[in-house]
Order: sequence, then structure tokens, then C-alpha cells
Amino acid sequence: MARIPGVRERGRSGMICTDISIAYFVPMPNNRHIVLRQRPAGPIDPDHFDLLRCRRPEPAPGQAVLAVEWLAMDPYLRSVIAGRHLGAALAPGERMPGQGIARVIEAPADGPVQPGDPVVTDCGWTEWVARPAEQLRRLELPDGVPPQTALGILGMPGLTAWAGLHRVAAIKPGEVVAVSSASGTVGAAVLQLARAHGCITIGITSETKLDYVKEELGADFVLSRTGDLPARLAAGDIPRFDVAFDNTGGEVLAAMLDHLALHARVVLCGLMAQYEQSERPPGPNLGPVIGARASLHGLVVYDHFDALPEFLATALPLYRSGRLRCHETVYQGLDQAPEAFCALMSGASHGRVLVRLKQ
Amino acid sequence: MARIPGVRERGRSGMICTDISIAYFVPMPNNRHIVLRQRPAGPIDPDHFDLLRCRRPEPAPGQAVLAVEWLAMDPYLRSVIAGRHLGAALAPGERMPGQGIARVIEAPADGPVQPGDPVVTDCGWTEWVARPAEQLRRLELPDGVPPQTALGILGMPGLTAWAGLHRVAAIKPGEVVAVSSASGTVGAAVLQLARAHGCITIGITSETKLDYVKEELGADFVLSRTGDLPARLAAGDIPRFDVAFDNTGGEVLAAMLDHLALHARVVLCGLMAQYEQSERPPGPNLGPVIGARASLHGLVVYDHFDALPEFLATALPLYRSGRLRCHETVYQGLDQAPEAFCALMSGASHGRVLVRLKQ
Repeated sequence: MARIPGVRERGRSGMICTDISIAYFVPMPNNRHIVLRQRPAGPIDPDHFDLLRCRRPEPAPGQAVLAVEWLAMDPYLRSVIAGRHLGAALAPGERMPGQGIARVIEAPADGPVQPGDPVVTDCGWTEWVARPAEQLRRLELPDGVPPQTALGILGMPGLTAWAGLHRVAAIKPGEVVAVSSASGTVGAAVLQLARAHGCITIGITSETKLDYVKEELGADFVLSRTGDLPARLAAGDIPRFDVAFDNTGGEVLAAMLDHLALHARVVLCGLMAQYEQSERPPGPNLGPVIGARASLHGLVVYDHFDALPEFLATALPLYRSGRLRCHETVYQGLDQAPEAFCALMSGASHGRVLVRLKQ
Repeated sequence: MARIPGVRERGRSGMICTDISIAYFVPMPNNRHIVLRQRPAGPIDPDHFDLLRCRRPEPAPGQAVLAVEWLAMDPYLRSVIAGRHLGAALAPGERMPGQGIARVIEAPADGPVQPGDPVVTDCGWTEWVARPAEQLRRLELPDGVPPQTALGILGMPGLTAWAGLHRVAAIKPGEVVAVSSASGTVGAAVLQLARAHGCITIGITSETKLDYVKEELGADFVLSRTGDLPARLAAGDIPRFDVAFDNTGGEVLAAMLDHLALHARVVLCGLMAQYEQSERPPGPNLGPVIGARASLHGLVVYDHFDALPEFLATALPLYRSGRLRCHETVYQGLDQAPEAFCALMSGASHGRVLVRLKQ
């Protein structure tokens, strides 16, 4: 822990100001961050977080100081909170992690970024952060592209969709591609990238977002996850899925597995249905996977960052022509991050959920 | 329904002999078969079958008449009985299907088989059967190879193992290969073929068969499926699985998925744990599949019959040198087939379960 100048430490567990005459030496907090107050047993709400005042970081040698401008609210963070995300567990009292866009304020003169540069980084839920400058790259924004798209449809969620469709499932024009959590950022990218590749697309989403998925994202078919999905799929007018891109798990995945075409590929990308549960629930019966000679593939976008240029070569022209887009829900101020995140998890928000920090 | 000469029919639902003077024209039953009496709600037992006398088939043009010599007892038949096997459902009163070895008794002179030839065919549980001759091929038995191996380690179960390991999982020397139901015919073939390819092998089986799997089949590690498998795997001395070959489903599969190496391949081959359940149970949580970037693949051996020569080119030399073998449990007589099948399903028998028909 960094020592705060002017405050004497006592014992091992804390520090106190022992002399009233030096009280004015104690620097005022000039930064804020959000920590996990307690791990939720069920659905998360804003009371599970604390907004705390703290000090701006003083850069160690080689570090850059960054002012955070945008924070991305992502479902995987719920899995981190639950201690189930690829081994990463967040303890109560620790700062929330998460991706954002920040502005470089100070940086080593010979480093890869300079003051004023925007960067995408794992800044966590804070206003100011220090990061090793060597790990940062200036975010190059083509003309007319708003920066926050680098956290969304043109960023990690878009790349997730692209890698799942092209690297894992190897979609071909004319194939039927279904996606769950279709109104989310990854889902929106899956639908539009698959459609642009000549696929027939099916979006599964909550009742209130059906119109958005059909009209704005252009899905050929939309299905409500809260209706009787197995009965709806059995009705006969929905073609069987050559590719199922699953962001949800649970009953929606089970219903999709029962509607696979022969040799279908299933991309396992997220488990929205179980992030809020304290125990891992069972999964879908795998009998239909054998019957369809299908395959299921775990997808982690971290393995596919090398595909970013290839992804952007496809995605940028689509974005410019209006064929790759995503609704944005923007909350203002770091203090709104817990509310923004909980709205994402409850399904109350839709599209890309972002927090814009006031500096 | 074929009319039996000499018996007059009355009405639509049956036939009776109306004149005592022609009773001696009624041909005596000279064949027997086994039909499903009723679909079991839980574990199957011999009372769910009926042994019935019937007539030997009279061949239609182009058909061969076969005398059945061996019947293979396979777990997938339980799935057929439950009505869940690739759409094939057996109704009460219908003859049990199943693979066997039969001897050609009569055949069209210009067909591919001649009287005396042995054939492997889907004969069902009967003593005599007629089949289109065009679909039959003489079973070529190399010297010293007993015919029933064509139903086992050198037949469909062996090919299943080979296709799963080489075509689906693409095993490489040095990889760790785990298999459930390791003492079954497919499991035994998986262990021995993987070992012959230079893999480290792990067999999961019931407590009473651990010694067999370790000593006879040569598994590097054996694990009891009835012990606390997750705790045993977490203990640390069992390497993570590059390939998991699952014949079981249920809790064993869930435990295997929690112990996958990065980029593991899982072959989904059978669901022994659920064949006896009237409702499809849930499956394993798929979170670990995402974390391991693993893939799961449904395997149906029917898709891989073209690989039989390639399989035998590997398997026959192994068989001759004693490195590919399987315990046989042989029941005598068609009337023993229900007992043989139920012993297979309950786990009371082990290795290849066969019925030898007395002719």
C-alpha cells in the first residue's frame, strides 16, 4: 500500500493522524472509485457496492496516469463478482474491474502513448488510474466514429461476435444462425455480422425487446425467451439452426439444442442465466447434441485479439453504412455505475450499457 | 400381416381354426423372437419382454434367409426402447432390434452372399430372419479371429472408439485421454487404442471393475464413478484431460468437464446414466467448457462406417498381439437375451455382453 505523506502509520492494520498540528498536511481525496461491498447471494443491486473517495494514483516509473472517460458495463463482471470468471474472484472491499476508455494525462516521454491520447484499458470503476505505459496503445478513431464504439460494436463485444461466427463456427452464406440475448451488444453484432455474411438470422430476446431486434437489428425471425420457446420452435416455421450463438445458458440454450440442424456448431459465449445464481445450476441435456452430430465450443474473446484488424476490416464499412449498429444506454457519472450495471443484469436496460464520467 | 396357409381368417383382428378336420394343416411355429411387452418407467427387467413363438420368414424375391448365431447386447437399445434413439421408437409388441451375426441359409443365386456365409446384420432378437440379399456382405474373418469379435472390439464398438479418438478428437501421442464406462466394449477399445497411440489413459468405471480396467485393459489411472469423483479429481495427481470420451453423461460427465485441459475435446458418445430414466434429466453445467475453451462433439458411429478398413488396419495387429481385447460375457440361447440385456444395463455384467443362439 502506498504511504500517504504526512500521515504516520501505527501498528499493522491502519493509520491515524496522531498530532492535530499536522492535520492540514493530510492530502484531500481527489479521486473516487467503486468497490464491492458484499457478494450478492441472489440478484445484484446497487447496495452491493460502495462509492469511496480515494487519492489519485502517483505513477510509478514507467506508468502513465489516465483520466477515465467511459466505462463499459459487461455481464462477465457479474461472474467475476461471483468468483467464477476464469479463476478471477473479486473480494469484498476490492475495486470493481472493467474495461473503459481513458485519456492519458501524464506519460513517460519515450513511451507508446502521450498526454492527450485516448486509450482502451482495463481501468476498473474509478476516475483516475495509473497503468504501465508499455501496455497502452493510442486508440485510433476513424473519422466520424464516436469513441465509445470501441467499447461496443467495434470493440471487444463486436470482436467476440466475429470470432465466434468466423473462427469458431465458420459460418457460410445461407446458413441459419440463432443467437440468444440478441439485444445485447454481442447479440446485436452476431445478428448483423451473420446477416452481412448472407446468413438467415434468428434473435432470441425478452418480450419487450422483440421489436428492437426485428426492426433495428434486422433479424429474420425473433423469438421471446420468456414465451414457451420449445413449443414455439416445435411449431415448424423456424428453420433448424446451423449455428447457435449462446450468451445465455439455461433453458434458452436447452431449447436451442433441441432445434439444431445436422452438424450444427454451437458457440458457448456467456451464461447470463446463471450469473445471478450462487450455485452453478445444471446445464442442458446433451442427447440432442449426439443426435445432431453437433459440436459445442467454448469461446473466450481474449484468445482472439489478433483478429481485431480482420474484424475491423469487415465491421467498419458495415458501421459506416448503418448495417452494424447497437442501441446505447448511457449513464452519467461514476456514481451511476452500480445502477447501470444492475439494470444490465436485470434486463431493464438494453443495448450497450455505458457510463460517461464527468471530469 | 402374412397369411399362414391353411388357416382361415375371420374378421379383421385375428384368425381361428374353424374346422377340427384341418387342424393338421396349421404349420407349427418354427421360430422364436423377443418383443417388448411394455416400456419400463424405470430400470428395465426381463419381465418387460415376451418370448414368442412365430414362423420362420419366407423370403420375398431378392431376400436371403438367415439363421442368427450371435446377438450383441448394446446400451443404445435401451434408448430405442425409451423412444429416444435418433427418432427410432419401439412400440410394445414389436420385435427387439439389434445387431448380430447370422449364417446365410438361402440366398438368391446371383447375390453377394451364398448359403453358409456369415454376415453381420441388424437381425433383431430372433432365431430366423429374412433380409434383402443386396444389403448383406460376407463377413471375412482373418485366421484365428473368433466371429463374435465382429460384434465387439473389432466391430461397431471398436469402430466407435476409433472414430471418436481419431476423427473427432484427433488424439496426439502424449495427450491425456479419459473415458467413462471404461469397462464397456467401447470404453475398453478407447483405452487400448489411445494407449497404443501413445496417450496417457484414465478409465472411469464402477468400483467392482477397477481392477479389470487397470490390469486387463492397462489404464494408467482408474477412478471409481461411485466414489466422490469431483473430490478425487481435485486431489491433484490426475492430469487434466486433453480428451474426454463420454459414454455415460450425468454426474460423471459433469466431473470430467470440471477437469479439462485448455482446448480439450470431449466426445459425446453415450448417455448410459439416463437411458433408464423416463424423463430426460438436465445435463452438466457448461461454464467449465467456456473456461477451458473446450469443444464437445456428438458422435454417431453410423457416420463413420467408411473408416472400417482404416480402423481394422490398426486394430487387427493390436488384437493379434493381445493389446486390444475385451472381456466377453456370453449368455446361451435366445430366451436368455432379456436377462443378458438387463445385466448389461444394471452393470451386473461386464465387457462385451453377447447371446449365443443354439441352432
